[in-house]
Amino acid sequence: MSTILITGSSRGLGLELVRQFSAQAGKQGGLVIATARSCSPALKEAVSRSNGLVVFVALDLADEKSVTNSAYEVRGFLQGRSLDILINCAGVYSVTSGKTAEMPDLDYQLSVNVVGAHNVLRQYIPLMQNSDVKKVINISSGYGSLALAQSYVYAPCPAYKISKAALNALTVQYALSYKDEGFTMVAVNPGWLQSDMGGENADLTVAQGAEAVMDVVMSLKSEDNGCFKSIRVPGWDGSNGRAVYDGKDLLW
Amino acid sequence: MSTILITGSSRGLGLELVRQFSAQAGKQGGLVIATARSCSPALKEAVSRSNGLVVFVALDLADEKSVTNSAYEVRGFLQGRSLDILINCAGVYSVTSGKTAEMPDLDYQLSVNVVGAHNVLRQYIPLMQNSDVKKVINISSGYGSLALAQSYVYAPCPAYKISKAALNALTVQYALSYKDEGFTMVAVNPGWLQSDMGGENADLTVAQGAEAVMDVVMSLKSEDNGCFKSIRVPGWDGSNGRAVYDGKDLLW
Repeated sequence: MSTILITGSSRGLGLELVRQFSAQAGKQGGLVIATARSCSPALKEAVSRSNGLVVFVALDLADEKSVTNSAYEVRGFLQGRSLDILINCAGVYSVTSGKTAEMPDLDYQLSVNVVGAHNVLRQYIPLMQNSDVKKVINISSGYGSLALAQSYVYAPCPAYKISKAALNALTVQYALSYKDEGFTMVAVNPGWLQSDMGGENADLTVAQGAEAVMDVVMSLKSEDNGCFKSIRVPGWDGSNGRAVYDGKDLLW
Repeated sequence: MSTILITGSSRGLGLELVRQFSAQAGKQGGLVIATARSCSPALKEAVSRSNGLVVFVALDLADEKSVTNSAYEVRGFLQGRSLDILINCAGVYSVTSGKTAEMPDLDYQLSVNVVGAHNVLRQYIPLMQNSDVKKVINISSGYGSLALAQSYVYAPCPAYKISKAALNALTVQYALSYKDEGFTMVAVNPGWLQSDMGGENADLTVAQGAEAVMDVVMSLKSEDNGCFKSIRVPGWDGSNGRAVYDGKDLLW
């Protein structure tokens, strides 16, 4: 466990990943850099309880300048070390009332969830070049799968779905481009979580989702580069008649 | 054969589709509406030779207002008829020097190739509602396939590839949303064509590509809705050791 940066850390999955990674970091002398547009009370608490293992850096995914500035600040916190793991968890979500033609915010969803992720990657990859780990995890969604689109037709968020498909494509292009430098870059479906975004009827608690994402991150191998990873959660192999979280790669 | 609108008609595949559809339209009393940012000399010639079967309407995919205005003009040309077939052929292409992080224009590629297509669809679907045909063809690319990305790694156009993957996702979301109204919406890979974009070393002449795309359009069935269609070109079944254009659906 070494240095890890998590975007979208003010709540939900990002916040829980900060908590769980910092519990591990404490045992092994790592550093967790938690970024978000602003520091929520819950994230403030995680920082103050961490004895310096967790630091907050402001990063607004929708603002390229903010992304650039954050990288300068992170460089300071790293004090000459490399960044080992980058988890892009930040993103925006929206619902469309009515038909797909009614999407009012496709440009915004693409701008934040795809171009924003691109801005983060291009600012932070230079900070990872000397790491031995070099893992990049883009938090995607099963909704981003075109092959599975029919099974998610009930979810009224077409702009979000399109942005996650594009984020997957971004992940693949980066993965192919940085493979020769030892990077492992994947898209991960974290499952349907009981977060503000997922709602209380979702499949898994945020803690379950974060734990399962951590498992994916820690067990990533170079041959996973460019894949669309599913989490694995015991009891969710399809036998409960609900979603399947069996750890197998998803279809694009 | 009835009323058809083709975007990106000033050159390349769009222009050739205008020529080939107008040859058919002449036999059967149809109307071909050729749109482009501006009317090229070659498109002017196609219009003037067509005896009124081909009309030009200005449509700049990068400018939402231009898309909106074009729909008013097209409504005039239709004179109460419905639009039967819409072929989104317009788009932008760019090359990136170096690594994927160097992409300078991801936002622009997404804005034109994805949000632009969305703007066209939302303006023109209302003109198609009373048609018995209702076919929408988004000209995509094999480069937009994530499953095949490794085999296209030689092509230095990551932003274009990501935009085509997102266009595919847009196609699927529209296809699912408008299926109940009788629309058939597909993404089509027109093959690597000897156009300005494809260059002279490409697999097929523009005429071959256009003919094969026409075949796809004319033979579309409702069960094709939401699919990623390949063209079929005799002799390109893989036995020549080059690309495969066998008419089978592509993987996303």
